[in-house]
Amino acid sequence: MSACAGPAAIQLSRIMRPDDANIAGNVHGGTILKMIEEAGAIISTRHCNSQAGERCVAALARVERTDFLSPMCIGEVAHVSAEITYTSKRSVEVQVNVLSENILTGAKRVTNRATLWYVPLSLKNVDKVLEVPPIQYALKELEEEGKKRYEEQKLERLVTKQRNGDIIFPVINPEPYTVGYSQSSLIHLVGPSDCTLHGFVHGGVTMKLMDEVAGIVAARHCKTNIVTASVDAINFHEKIKKGCVITISGRMTFTSNKSMEIEVFVDADPFVDEPKERYRAVSAFFTYVSLSKEGKPLPVPQLLAESEDEKRRFEDGKGRYLQTKAKRQVQMQPLTQQ
Amino acid sequence: MSACAGPAAIQLSRIMRPDDANIAGNVHGGTILKMIEEAGAIISTRHCNSQAGERCVAALARVERTDFLSPMCIGEVAHVSAEITYTSKRSVEVQVNVLSENILTGAKRVTNRATLWYVPLSLKNVDKVLEVPPIQYALKELEEEGKKRYEEQKLERLVTKQRNGDIIFPVINPEPYTVGYSQSSLIHLVGPSDCTLHGFVHGGVTMKLMDEVAGIVAARHCKTNIVTASVDAINFHEKIKKGCVITISGRMTFTSNKSMEIEVFVDADPFVDEPKERYRAVSAFFTYVSLSKEGKPLPVPQLLAESEDEKRRFEDGKGRYLQTKAKRQVQMQPLTQQ
Amino acid sequence: MSACAGPAAIQLSRIMRPDDANIAGNVHGGTILKMIEEAGAIISTRHCNSQAGERCVAALARVERTDFLSPMCIGEVAHVSAEITYTSKRSVEVQVNVLSENILTGAKRVTNRATLWYVPLSLKNVDKVLEVPPIQYALKELEEEGKKRYEEQKLERLVTKQRNGDIIFPVINPEPYTVGYSQSSLIHLVGPSDCTLHGFVHGGVTMKLMDEVAGIVAARHCKTNIVTASVDAINFHEKIKKGCVITISGRMTFTSNKSMEIEVFVDADPFVDEPKERYRAVSAFFTYVSLSKEGKPLPVPQLLAESEDEKRRFEDGKGRYLQTKAKRQVQMQPLTQQ
Repeated sequence: MSACAGPAAIQLSRIMRPDDANIAGNVHGGTILKMIEEAGAIISTRHCNSQAGERCVAALARVERTDFLSPMCIGEVAHVSAEITYTSKRSVEVQVNVLSENILTGAKRVTNRATLWYVPLSLKNVDKVLEVPPIQYALKELEEEGKKRYEEQKLERLVTKQRNGDIIFPVINPEPYTVGYSQSSLIHLVGPSDCTLHGFVHGGVTMKLMDEVAGIVAARHCKTNIVTASVDAINFHEKIKKGCVITISGRMTFTSNKSMEIEVFVDADPFVDEPKERYRAVSAFFTYVSLSKEGKPLPVPQLLAESEDEKRRFEDGKGRYLQTKAKRQVQMQPLTQQ
Repeated sequence: MSACAGPAAIQLSRIMRPDDANIAGNVHGGTILKMIEEAGAIISTRHCNSQAGERCVAALARVERTDFLSPMCIGEVAHVSAEITYTSKRSVEVQVNVLSENILTGAKRVTNRATLWYVPLSLKNVDKVLEVPPIQYALKELEEEGKKRYEEQKLERLVTKQRNGDIIFPVINPEPYTVGYSQSSLIHLVGPSDCTLHGFVHGGVTMKLMDEVAGIVAARHCKTNIVTASVDAINFHEKIKKGCVITISGRMTFTSNKSMEIEVFVDADPFVDEPKERYRAVSAFFTYVSLSKEGKPLPVPQLLAESEDEKRRFEDGKGRYLQTKAKRQVQMQPLTQQ
Repeated sequence: MSACAGPAAIQLSRIMRPDDANIAGNVHGGTILKMIEEAGAIISTRHCNSQAGERCVAALARVERTDFLSPMCIGEVAHVSAEITYTSKRSVEVQVNVLSENILTGAKRVTNRATLWYVPLSLKNVDKVLEVPPIQYALKELEEEGKKRYEEQKLERLVTKQRNGDIIFPVINPEPYTVGYSQSSLIHLVGPSDCTLHGFVHGGVTMKLMDEVAGIVAARHCKTNIVTASVDAINFHEKIKKGCVITISGRMTFTSNKSMEIEVFVDADPFVDEPKERYRAVSAFFTYVSLSKEGKPLPVPQLLAESEDEKRRFEDGKGRYLQTKAKRQVQMQPLTQQ
């Protein structure tokens, strides 16, 4: 189904500006993730309100693994198109495609394909998940495949929830190429424009900040220009409210010859409004590659895993890396493959 | 031709955020003008580069009179669609439609229709205007009507050029409701994200700042919530370069029972790079209405024109007002009509 | 001399938007500091280029102690006016006044008065300080007083340079109300819009980030809404280049009954371009007060200084507090006075 096929599709376009990019002129992965999420939020909120009844806002619950197939550059136009591909009783699956268009040469490239899951939360009671109106499928097979994807992600969400208690401790005077050497964190005070009509942070805003931290970790490690190659599935366990301070922390977990894996945690601190404790809202793995001035992938210095925990995480990262590589050999040829 | 009709059309969509709006929750006219211009710049730059030859960027030369038919609110999605409707040898006419969509209720309203003129400037030599590839017309009449619009705007551009030398002098301790009482100015240092690939300010950025000043003038005069009702044709006589300081000044010229006309000047000061003098880059008339909390137009205090010049400008404004009113009685029913 | 008196004065105005403010609707001190610095940079760059010769950009060298006399609110218009009040051979003193205007009621209040020092750096060679064209003084006394201010700040700059080596160490599991409990840091990747034509960070951008960290430290300590009451003199020892990562760290140093003093450090890490080491670029003391919902100052929990260093810094802070209090008793009545 193309972006022009009907009311179920939406397209967002925008020129990429200097502020959207790093020094090499490549647009930050986070900027693209934010546009992807905005398109997803619009189309799923619209769908969930398409019948009479209680009004709601669709909140991001999960983003499936996303590859950055090709870089987007300053001055290019990003076209982000979204459509709803599956609905369960209480969730919506949205597929989003991102195209870059060089309006000077006419060249177009697919830069991303992403899958996002939303749940409709009542505007009156934000803890109440409403029912989703079912979509019509052109083919019975499309519904069955959607159901399979739905069951798979449901299972995976339980797994990451367990990993979620981890904390990044500060390190004094770390050695180069150790985990402590590049680990970074930033804090952000959530403002009104970061939020939905509910007063909760847009998932896209959170992902943009996560990519910012992950990019700084990667650049601190290899001291070159870096770009986002992929993001592993992200689960949004807990909502983040306007007025919170969020701490986004990143640490490197694994390096292959030409890629770096960075784990990012988002912790929310509702320090003014409520007596609530600081809590883990999101966590994810980002993969970065280092690029030469000509845009070719460069070798990456190996990460020095020191403690037992660091070594275990390195092996886990290697497992994810090999698994992804194996999957790709039966699929396509994106940027990170070596 | 619909926005989905082919490669000649483009659509931009975005959720309106708190920072896009005034205190009453209505989106600033300037935000919408900026989106309109971005859509126009993308489609005309793409078209002008659609043939082999020198690469170029389309620069905004003129925006025809634009009415704000209905307010856009925070949380709504703005859909901006543009298509090319006429090409002369060295210029492109783009028509843009803006729709607001309330994704909670599904309600859609047309909020603006705008016509913009662009000229393609060579990327190698910014003072060289390139030739525009001709478009195909579905009907011979469409081409003839376009040609007529082209000739009309060409004539009008000469007229405004003469008016362009005026200056707004500061007034110490002005009386309420005089011109000096509400006149305002702001300065802006042109940054990288304000600019095109050439390093010149996007027309949309300038229009957004103009609307900001005009809005302050209007609010100072009537001390209520105000919204942009229309913008008279704007001609972009001179380009503005990155690194310039621009001064945007506004003064009220005319009030009817329920509307205010504000004249806005943009002066550019290339204060670092060159020995060039400060120069007038753009000027325009904005019309505002004052709104009650329920969104109904309120009566506006009459402007006290004191000097001979102020009285002359008031009469000129009255002329424009009556002319527009007469034109509308044969057309449609927008926001300012009384 | 008023802001309207001639070419030597400049005025910036802007409506305060939701994102400019904290949850209580008060505009962040950092937003105002950024506007103040933008006005100062424009007027001094313009002045230093007012004669034929090498082109330059004025870089911020120092901001004198700045008091926040009254809060600025969302929807108000901030008017920032700047004028040059003294020139030495290689530096420019700019005085800036900030007024808030409620455009609905017409009420105006002075919110800040600030003094900034700039030095003109050649556009061709950023390490070369050019000569400043002298200004004309209306009275001989004005020149003499300016010279006295110039000599005083020169002396003070040497003193802070010595204090500048300090580092904030992370603390694991800190007790409430200790220094470690509220200390915070954030990282920021310097983007194009943060920078001058030279590609160096605007002083105002740095100050805004410093205020952001200081505000988070203050809010973490007292868990209430807080506002910036004053900033001690800030010296900009080292420039920060585009593409750097900057780390801004803050720790509480002192509390009186109703105010908190926070020390903020800015470290720049030029990690991509150059082999240069991370260095301290700026440091400063911010004072915050805690406000009730009605805008009245609240008592502040006392800071628990534990180590010898913390106790020494607490006493130093007390010294600064008492000195300021004594000075104020001969001057005026700003926000922090108790």
